[in-house]
Amino acid sequence: MIRVGVVGYGYWGPNLVRNLADAPDCRVSAICDSSQERLAVARHRVPAAATTTEWTDLVQDPRVDAVAVATPVATHFEIALEALRAGKHVLLEKPMAATADQALRLIDEAERRRLTLMVDHTFVFTGAVRKIRETIEAGDLGEIYYYDSVRVNLGVFRSDVNVIWDLAAHDFSIIDYLLAQSPCAISATGMNHVPGGVENIAWVTAFFQSPLIVHLGLNWLAPVKVRQTLIGGSERMIVYDDLEPSEKVKIYDKGITVDNGVSPESLHGLRIGYRTGDMRAPKLDTTEALRTATLHFLQCVETGRQPITGGCAGLRVVRLLEAATHSLRHRGRLVELEGGSVPA
Amino acid sequence: MIRVGVVGYGYWGPNLVRNLADAPDCRVSAICDSSQERLAVARHRVPAAATTTEWTDLVQDPRVDAVAVATPVATHFEIALEALRAGKHVLLEKPMAATADQALRLIDEAERRRLTLMVDHTFVFTGAVRKIRETIEAGDLGEIYYYDSVRVNLGVFRSDVNVIWDLAAHDFSIIDYLLAQSPCAISATGMNHVPGGVENIAWVTAFFQSPLIVHLGLNWLAPVKVRQTLIGGSERMIVYDDLEPSEKVKIYDKGITVDNGVSPESLHGLRIGYRTGDMRAPKLDTTEALRTATLHFLQCVETGRQPITGGCAGLRVVRLLEAATHSLRHRGRLVELEGGSVPA
Amino acid sequence: MIRVGVVGYGYWGPNLVRNLADAPDCRVSAICDSSQERLAVARHRVPAAATTTEWTDLVQDPRVDAVAVATPVATHFEIALEALRAGKHVLLEKPMAATADQALRLIDEAERRRLTLMVDHTFVFTGAVRKIRETIEAGDLGEIYYYDSVRVNLGVFRSDVNVIWDLAAHDFSIIDYLLAQSPCAISATGMNHVPGGVENIAWVTAFFQSPLIVHLGLNWLAPVKVRQTLIGGSERMIVYDDLEPSEKVKIYDKGITVDNGVSPESLHGLRIGYRTGDMRAPKLDTTEALRTATLHFLQCVETGRQPITGGCAGLRVVRLLEAATHSLRHRGRLVELEGGSVPA
Amino acid sequence: MIRVGVVGYGYWGPNLVRNLADAPDCRVSAICDSSQERLAVARHRVPAAATTTEWTDLVQDPRVDAVAVATPVATHFEIALEALRAGKHVLLEKPMAATADQALRLIDEAERRRLTLMVDHTFVFTGAVRKIRETIEAGDLGEIYYYDSVRVNLGVFRSDVNVIWDLAAHDFSIIDYLLAQSPCAISATGMNHVPGGVENIAWVTAFFQSPLIVHLGLNWLAPVKVRQTLIGGSERMIVYDDLEPSEKVKIYDKGITVDNGVSPESLHGLRIGYRTGDMRAPKLDTTEALRTATLHFLQCVETGRQPITGGCAGLRVVRLLEAATHSLRHRGRLVELEGGSVPA
Repeated sequence: MIRVGVVGYGYWGPNLVRNLADAPDCRVSAICDSSQERLAVARHRVPAAATTTEWTDLVQDPRVDAVAVATPVATHFEIALEALRAGKHVLLEKPMAATADQALRLIDEAERRRLTLMVDHTFVFTGAVRKIRETIEAGDLGEIYYYDSVRVNLGVFRSDVNVIWDLAAHDFSIIDYLLAQSPCAISATGMNHVPGGVENIAWVTAFFQSPLIVHLGLNWLAPVKVRQTLIGGSERMIVYDDLEPSEKVKIYDKGITVDNGVSPESLHGLRIGYRTGDMRAPKLDTTEALRTATLHFLQCVETGRQPITGGCAGLRVVRLLEAATHSLRHRGRLVELEGGSVPA
Repeated sequence: MIRVGVVGYGYWGPNLVRNLADAPDCRVSAICDSSQERLAVARHRVPAAATTTEWTDLVQDPRVDAVAVATPVATHFEIALEALRAGKHVLLEKPMAATADQALRLIDEAERRRLTLMVDHTFVFTGAVRKIRETIEAGDLGEIYYYDSVRVNLGVFRSDVNVIWDLAAHDFSIIDYLLAQSPCAISATGMNHVPGGVENIAWVTAFFQSPLIVHLGLNWLAPVKVRQTLIGGSERMIVYDDLEPSEKVKIYDKGITVDNGVSPESLHGLRIGYRTGDMRAPKLDTTEALRTATLHFLQCVETGRQPITGGCAGLRVVRLLEAATHSLRHRGRLVELEGGSVPA
Repeated sequence: MIRVGVVGYGYWGPNLVRNLADAPDCRVSAICDSSQERLAVARHRVPAAATTTEWTDLVQDPRVDAVAVATPVATHFEIALEALRAGKHVLLEKPMAATADQALRLIDEAERRRLTLMVDHTFVFTGAVRKIRETIEAGDLGEIYYYDSVRVNLGVFRSDVNVIWDLAAHDFSIIDYLLAQSPCAISATGMNHVPGGVENIAWVTAFFQSPLIVHLGLNWLAPVKVRQTLIGGSERMIVYDDLEPSEKVKIYDKGITVDNGVSPESLHGLRIGYRTGDMRAPKLDTTEALRTATLHFLQCVETGRQPITGGCAGLRVVRLLEAATHSLRHRGRLVELEGGSVPA
Repeated sequence: MIRVGVVGYGYWGPNLVRNLADAPDCRVSAICDSSQERLAVARHRVPAAATTTEWTDLVQDPRVDAVAVATPVATHFEIALEALRAGKHVLLEKPMAATADQALRLIDEAERRRLTLMVDHTFVFTGAVRKIRETIEAGDLGEIYYYDSVRVNLGVFRSDVNVIWDLAAHDFSIIDYLLAQSPCAISATGMNHVPGGVENIAWVTAFFQSPLIVHLGLNWLAPVKVRQTLIGGSERMIVYDDLEPSEKVKIYDKGITVDNGVSPESLHGLRIGYRTGDMRAPKLDTTEALRTATLHFLQCVETGRQPITGGCAGLRVVRLLEAATHSLRHRGRLVELEGGSVPA
């Protein structure tokens, strides 16, 4: 039986509580929120959990084995660090921390204490993203050419982080899981339309040491919700639409063929042909992603294994978020990432 | 009766010929293509037109009053210049020319000879784009915040121009028509995935001397066709989906409200509220855009009036294409445009 | 404080419990299900409620003021009757009862005891259906010509009732709420594809004493889920798509115009023109329908007012279900309904 | 070289002319229309064709080998009969004739004179319908359970024929091509909403001597265009959406499994399970259907072979149209079809 304390019972916290409460051999033993009103709701739904407005109490509570943190990102580091120091395993909402330095220190703390530190990169636990990874690993796409995602909606504006920290965190965690490479450089553009606010619209390009290229469109001020990702490969291409009720992943047997024996006098030089075959939408596991994620966390706590989305994955995502925001503030200036070199 | 000679009878030429032939007081008197096979098709469909493989013959033909040019962009300048020198009015397919210099020289030649020079920025003549302009001019959107377009498909790869010259030409001509301002700087990223080819995927951001921002996603190697543009304003927002059979333009009465009197202690700082009202899809004129465009060209020839999409509009588009390609080749490096200054 | 006992904790029961538990001045005091496993889940989620496998205990429980019944329709009559006899108010899942006679006896029992008897015709409590009724009542559609609904999915096959009793109950309750008239005759066709099963696919036409006509397509064995209703009027027409995430109701300013002065010699007789105007998707109340329904029930219990979907509405729906099933078993034979006369 | 005369140059005639003109070894030698205005258009487009307002002239014209008839259905019989008597092959637009008797007499005339008589059941020549037939013939669907089609739009109201004759003709020709059986009985309902008009909305059910059932929804007064057909089989199910730009046919590996060993005490009797697998959208031939149809006609004329959609197919469709209209006029009364017996 793992007893989990949840810090933050606003938007995402209740989902964490529900999934933890439904998990076998797990109990939600404490809930913290700064709002008494939210705590009243929590008590109504989980009468057995202790409630408090002070996270410092919760992380010290001896009835708590692990702490799940669903608070604004600015507070992640402090809460997680205290929890780790108190010997608790930690599940952090994404993004892991406000800076790469903070993320590094949490990784360090968890490793020294041999505690589980996991970041809830939820999409990594969806049937859709897992099927896409399977497809890529089976070689079905051939060489990956691009990952191009549009993630826009009339969203929950935040004042603490910009749209990149809010929305790109999803895509960065997905590409971290899907692709064998990490970006070597980032260019981002965007704009803030709210006086005194942060950037509410942004586009991010990530370069790799190969012809692979990643692009994200992010927008909190869109009239419609779009969650569509195109993944192009030399052999096949994928459309991943997270808003589709059932066929979220469609694999197209489409591509180009290059004809080298083209006559040189052709003006248009149509040396390129098209291949079009069937489209296939594979059956997906429909388990709620957060259920899979929380079970994975509990299992890692139990066994001591490293989570799929552990501190290092969290750190890599935070580094990309930092680089993208830096580029954005300089209107697209290329930001190189350590551990990579920019393609010539 | 205006007698038009058409140079280029490949993909777009037949559409030009069909619309010109259907126009009142107009006759297609000559057709030129380098392929005898294409000319045979042309003769079959327009028996009354003279046919030739030499454009130099056509532009000198005394039976020709105006020349419509639907050839690869690299040849636009030479053909148009000879036609203007021969005293013919000229309708050029987009983009107008391969360089801004060429475009300038054509504008100059046409002005000195008082001949009509028009660029077929087809989308400007669609009912959808015209309705969007009406909506903007009526002030319904409020201040324009962004124009964000996705224009991707498994497309006709070209070897003469990259995906920006092919596809962004559409969006640049649309924003030139819709927006009161011109971009002051451009940042673009992209990639080429075909050995020896040109860039087949690209993203372009255009900055203005205001919080307005424009972004384009362009891709010749996409598994599905997408033609979707989001236009965000302070009062309303538009979704323009050119693939929708009837409701191509949807106007959403949505936006944000900023509450300045927010309590400072709020952690999330949710000072921003949302406004959601009705959506309206206005009735659109469904006349074929190319029909409207060719009629406009013929009318300008007749009256001597300046076309909506005259040489200067063509030049502005070419300048943006040049700047975007330059930025693309330098991984997003900001390219400032004369006549504008980059926002601080 | 109204204390509600819920009978049936299978598919729909938990939704009832959740909404009742969230309602102010209401408590779920008892839950009954024949499965101990389901009761364990119930205890986990609502520790304060008494649980039992015997509905007869629950309806006699003095701690229960009202009984909500979410069991198979065959059991509705017996449970509801006992509950009413024990002085409890009753909320019945749709359809109200297995026969019109049963429905009548429940109405009678509730009236004599002055108890609230409500049927959970959930769709009547959606923002979409309420907006459609508003639109109709404002006269925006003009004369209503037809209501044509497709309600299909790969559904939960039932062995106790056929697809009409399962799915048409929704549409019958919607038209009962939307339309000022009741059907005067029914014709239905369909088929059973499962050995020993009930009809899993059916189509129902309802006639009225006016040119209004209603048609339903119902299917438990469809590869995709469809929930689309077209409502045609002389002035405007509606598309109601319940699967649309936000614009569920679209009002089209479309129709025909009849030109009586047409020349009689015209062969095609195209005396009919088309009117096409804007489309409008009104903003909808997004409150969960079951929340609105349970609050309405509690309010009726409190005030003694007649529910919008009271016993009489439930009875009218059951009569249509009976008639449709009778016609279905006779391959479309017209079944006239008392209180109506078939149009000549 | 086959010389074809086309009677009727209204809506569909120009499509016929264009495809015949593009066909190898074929020439459009004459065009007839009652409107001089339409003939002027025809002359403009096909200068080589003779034009006349009298179809009696055209069918006697020695320069005509075959006659294509695109006039209102009421005139099909007379024109086709005269053409056959004059020794011309005949291609008739759907539906073949106004009555089954007329269709029979045309079949007889063509057979006696050994002339080709074909009905342009266009959908039979689409890549989509051909792929569906392939899929069915390969046994991929298993036993066919149902064909359920919705074919609605704000359509061209006709005064000569009702919506069944106009729209159901398509579906009847498709099922005639797809299914190995013919309907044994028909039930139809519908309504006319235009004073003095014909039925503009209708639903048709066709029964077979097996559990197969066919249903059609037809509507000239719908706010949106829908062309969606569900085809259910014991092994797989198809969604055929003719308005989809590319994936018109989707094959779902879905179905039910019947568990006979179910415990008898289960109240809901959920003896039925669900099977969900991948979805596949096969690549389709995108040749214009009318091109394939006209080439087939010309080939049949050339070789003397029987067309796929010959007179007998045309007759079967007309019989279904007659039966459906008869049932419609009697509010769903079952109409049995000769050569079939109604399932008990």
